Amino acid sequence: MASTSATQTDGLLLDSDMGPEAVKRLPAGALPLLAARIRAFLVEKVGAAGGHLGPNLGVVELSIALHRVFDSPWDTVLFDIGHQGYVHKLLTGRAGRFDNLRQAGGLSGYLSRAESSHDVIENSHASTVLSYADGLAKARRLAGESDRAVVAVVGDGALTGGMCWEALNNLGAAPERPVVIVLNDNMRSYAPTIGALADHLQHLRSTGPDSIDWLVEAGEGNNKPRAGAGSDSGDGADRVSSVGHHRRDDSELTGPLPVARNLFGLLGFAYLGPVDGHHLPSLEEALSMARDLRRPVMVHAVTVKGRGFAPAEGDAADCMHAVGVLDPATGRPRTGGDVPSWTSVFADELCGLGERHEDLVAITAAMPGPTGLARFGERFPDRFFDVGIAEQHAVTSAAGLALGGHHPVVAVYATFLGRAFDQVLMDVALHRLPVTFVLDRAGVTGPDGPSHHGMWDLTLLGAVPGMRVGVPRDATRLRELLGEAVAHSEGPTALRFPKASVSADIPALERHGPLEVLHRSAARDVLLVAVGSLAGPAVEAAQYLEERGIGVSVADPRWVLPVPPELLELALQYRLVVTVEDNTRAGGLGTAVARAVADAGSRVPVRVLGLPGRFLSHGTRSDILAAAGLTAKGIASSVLRARADRPHVGAGQ
Amino acid sequence: MASTSATQTDGLLLDSDMGPEAVKRLPAGALPLLAARIRAFLVEKVGAAGGHLGPNLGVVELSIALHRVFDSPWDTVLFDIGHQGYVHKLLTGRAGRFDNLRQAGGLSGYLSRAESSHDVIENSHASTVLSYADGLAKARRLAGESDRAVVAVVGDGALTGGMCWEALNNLGAAPERPVVIVLNDNMRSYAPTIGALADHLQHLRSTGPDSIDWLVEAGEGNNKPRAGAGSDSGDGADRVSSVGHHRRDDSELTGPLPVARNLFGLLGFAYLGPVDGHHLPSLEEALSMARDLRRPVMVHAVTVKGRGFAPAEGDAADCMHAVGVLDPATGRPRTGGDVPSWTSVFADELCGLGERHEDLVAITAAMPGPTGLARFGERFPDRFFDVGIAEQHAVTSAAGLALGGHHPVVAVYATFLGRAFDQVLMDVALHRLPVTFVLDRAGVTGPDGPSHHGMWDLTLLGAVPGMRVGVPRDATRLRELLGEAVAHSEGPTALRFPKASVSADIPALERHGPLEVLHRSAARDVLLVAVGSLAGPAVEAAQYLEERGIGVSVADPRWVLPVPPELLELALQYRLVVTVEDNTRAGGLGTAVARAVADAGSRVPVRVLGLPGRFLSHGTRSDILAAAGLTAKGIASSVLRARADRPHVGAGQ
Repeated sequence: MASTSATQTDGLLLDSDMGPEAVKRLPAGALPLLAARIRAFLVEKVGAAGGHLGPNLGVVELSIALHRVFDSPWDTVLFDIGHQGYVHKLLTGRAGRFDNLRQAGGLSGYLSRAESSHDVIENSHASTVLSYADGLAKARRLAGESDRAVVAVVGDGALTGGMCWEALNNLGAAPERPVVIVLNDNMRSYAPTIGALADHLQHLRSTGPDSIDWLVEAGEGNNKPRAGAGSDSGDGADRVSSVGHHRRDDSELTGPLPVARNLFGLLGFAYLGPVDGHHLPSLEEALSMARDLRRPVMVHAVTVKGRGFAPAEGDAADCMHAVGVLDPATGRPRTGGDVPSWTSVFADELCGLGERHEDLVAITAAMPGPTGLARFGERFPDRFFDVGIAEQHAVTSAAGLALGGHHPVVAVYATFLGRAFDQVLMDVALHRLPVTFVLDRAGVTGPDGPSHHGMWDLTLLGAVPGMRVGVPRDATRLRELLGEAVAHSEGPTALRFPKASVSADIPALERHGPLEVLHRSAARDVLLVAVGSLAGPAVEAAQYLEERGIGVSVADPRWVLPVPPELLELALQYRLVVTVEDNTRAGGLGTAVARAVADAGSRVPVRVLGLPGRFLSHGTRSDILAAAGLTAKGIASSVLRARADRPHVGAGQ
Repeated sequence: MASTSATQTDGLLLDSDMGPEAVKRLPAGALPLLAARIRAFLVEKVGAAGGHLGPNLGVVELSIALHRVFDSPWDTVLFDIGHQGYVHKLLTGRAGRFDNLRQAGGLSGYLSRAESSHDVIENSHASTVLSYADGLAKARRLAGESDRAVVAVVGDGALTGGMCWEALNNLGAAPERPVVIVLNDNMRSYAPTIGALADHLQHLRSTGPDSIDWLVEAGEGNNKPRAGAGSDSGDGADRVSSVGHHRRDDSELTGPLPVARNLFGLLGFAYLGPVDGHHLPSLEEALSMARDLRRPVMVHAVTVKGRGFAPAEGDAADCMHAVGVLDPATGRPRTGGDVPSWTSVFADELCGLGERHEDLVAITAAMPGPTGLARFGERFPDRFFDVGIAEQHAVTSAAGLALGGHHPVVAVYATFLGRAFDQVLMDVALHRLPVTFVLDRAGVTGPDGPSHHGMWDLTLLGAVPGMRVGVPRDATRLRELLGEAVAHSEGPTALRFPKASVSADIPALERHGPLEVLHRSAARDVLLVAVGSLAGPAVEAAQYLEERGIGVSVADPRWVLPVPPELLELALQYRLVVTVEDNTRAGGLGTAVARAVADAGSRVPVRVLGLPGRFLSHGTRSDILAAAGLTAKGIASSVLRARADRPHVGAGQ
């Protein structure tokens, strides 16, 4: 057994026997030791493998309390974004698998239904959990299973996302469908939570961390009668209506507090809190009460991201939200090599452009650090906007800024662009507004798994009329394309790059419009069209094939969509065109080139290499790319296979 | 001049001179007559052309007040969804163009920047306006133009959409950026507004329609100091802080009301209302005060959808939200022919399936009538859920229902699917959940213009792993496919059909797996692969070509994505494959077939017919399809052109 915890002799083993029943059997007095041991385990294991640390250190007590009060999987406990699910994994028998955390075939960095019946949703995009809970509560009611609780854990950061509002609007008006929302309020997403909601939560917390106010709003603020509330909430409601101002060390009940200034109360929820999210008796009491109320309840738990690990608590950027391998001596991430990341090159260049273009503004959806915008924000605080976890608003407020004469740069992970497709299409592109989207984590992201790969963005953007998409192959091209993008005033632009160190510069042999030729063979057997960082492997494949007598040229369109006329012109000069991109093959550059070639009346065959049309599991970026054939070797093999195909003639001939 | 109003002799002409300045110059006493004349004009013109009637009848006074208080276009007045913009059009010099409303080349049914400098956003998707306003307010502040007001008109229905929450969170926390939100509360979207927000607005309205309570919340509910509020909100804030309980006929100030139960107050907004949205003096007073406050303000105007036109006010379904041509005798829509619509066939079939499948549940995002789900809702009220204008929540709550053992059918307009792409991809497909999406208004929608055409859904759905997409060519196939979809338990399915009468049934000659052959020529020159309602034109084209000696077969894959193996097998037997679909050519069936053919090592050319990769203006459905070549004649011409192309050989040969 690899776990250090397993060497303890007090019976508190973090091993595969540590299931919910074992957690329930522990005496309350043993729980602080369990919490401490879980924290030590997390620091050790996540520090060795890399992963989400801060969020999990913050929910140790909360996860313990959830498993003591509720009966998962009979009761359904849902976590918004699985990155706060490591403790839940430990408490559901998965301690022994943490040595393979986020490795291919190993434990997922998020939740996974394949791993455990205690995992229900696998998604790593924020703000979804209340909607799942609403659907599940509807299903429970239809099935007459109102004794099965539905519990949704959501962060204060995620609550700024519009999906949560849509769900709250539905949940709060349905007293007949009990859902327990646990608001894990650590005042942050990556960055501190912004906006009116954050201000309001601060107001609710203002009774102070040493006191707990139980505040119950039974919906009397609204006039509409609550059909069904009476039948379902009988003794629970009676019990709580007698609970008033309650302090941890003082069980005296002094009557209900005014419910005036509580957002959740106004929306129809019973509100319990704020609760010290690191004090187990308070948590268990609040969760039990919430369970018994049998109506929509908001339990407001106040936690500290990174709790109990000084380097995390002291990390002003993001409380060690997600870490690489940690240095055991310092508890800080080991520094990488000297090669900067794509993000870092972008961050620097944007600051330079900001100096020259006064109309440039930058927008992030709660990720100033990971997107590299923090530097721009420090340099130009008035021209930097963190809008919270709110991709839709990020895009459409950018449209508003563009209407007002600015050139906004919206930096977002490629995988989160799907949250705002409609806004990109209608609010920006239909209005032909000069907004630049910078998509980080495009292509294969690696250990974060299927919902973090950025493999749909080229498909989405390729369908948007008037959208120009550039993909840099190296740092030089990133700087060039970014400069061209922010100077483009006729409509939207987008750039994309992966989570990786920048690729080595590849100089151009020739330039035709936006297109650059990186490798040229005299014989025009094959044209390789490579997108972004796949240019390197493509050139390598071309050299390999050339040595075997096949003439291969390599073109980098730079602006890949729409297909530049120069690329089409070049393609028509070859016997075979092979496109290479780290996007799903369903859409993207390859299908666009094939269509352009066919439209030109040409029968030059076009082969599309890219990511397969299925969800890709977690693993290393290089392994996943290799499995998809997106390496020099894979590309060369595909070219050889394509050349081996005989021109097919119709059976009708 | 076609306008009847122009024949009036009192100087109140609804003509091209009726601009904002003229509206401002009118004495207050003339305004009720102006309002009455506008209503008569709307009923006449919209009744003759078809269009949005109820929403515009409800905002007559509001639009007049906006143009009297604010100075458009110096001040920016933004409307969420332009369908409430007809009165605004009348007041900005466009009365003379209403005879060509929604016709090709005529006045848009939404706002249009090409029509007027008073139109700023053109989108017809709900809930975007607050985000635009946030961006514009940021731009104004950066430009030092804080004297230019930003006003956003939004409906109570749209406020249930998550984008609004994201925007409110940003707007309410920025007292230094004044934005005036005008909440046009008519208690409805199409249907009555649902949820906790609707309950809360009912509470706010409960002081009664005959009194106006001015309720001002200066943000004191939150602890955070409001940097900048003091400097910007000087005399405005002073002025309003002295305004308390105010009745229309009683200017006595009795001190501030308690701000306790006001959602918008808690979120940092000054709140003014409720205001009788049909009483011009009250509206002008509220809007003037809001303008002068120089901080984020919510003006809560209560209006009646369809106001002043009895058939609209009395229409329980949707207050004549959007109408076809009206019968002048009855004021009711003229009934069409005997051919049912796709929507109607779907609605009936779903009810039948609901009888046989107890696990079937149905979800709408605020459109029970237009999607046809109302019938299911009447038959199975417990299994029907209207979640409000909240497409994201519609999809993910469906995922929750599926996790709970149900088979949800989410019926939504194709154009609104873009609002929930991420949820379809991650929350449903990644979890392999059996949810069926039914996309109405797919393809060319017609007079509603660019943001209502459903021409991206096949691209989006084709990129979703595990998604099966069926497109019925006629009523028989719609019933079949819907039955197969709700019986499919391995993952998500989607069906799509246009806004039109169902196409005449086309029987199958042969069946191969899901695929049906509708026309068969002995000579295998060309295979036409037709999607849905384009099967009819394809068969007609085949017959035409056959008479000219070209052997053409027509296949309907029925389940079009992913490409059925039977379709690929058939395609490889022909000299030319031509696909026909009413989706953007950037994605959809055509590119998928071309890729499958190339992957098979075949060089059979595949030509993709579909909608062009640009935004399509309003016009009749048949004209737009004809312009895109998606008629029998257009398809035949494309086949002839494709056959005329010489096989292209590489220049390198």
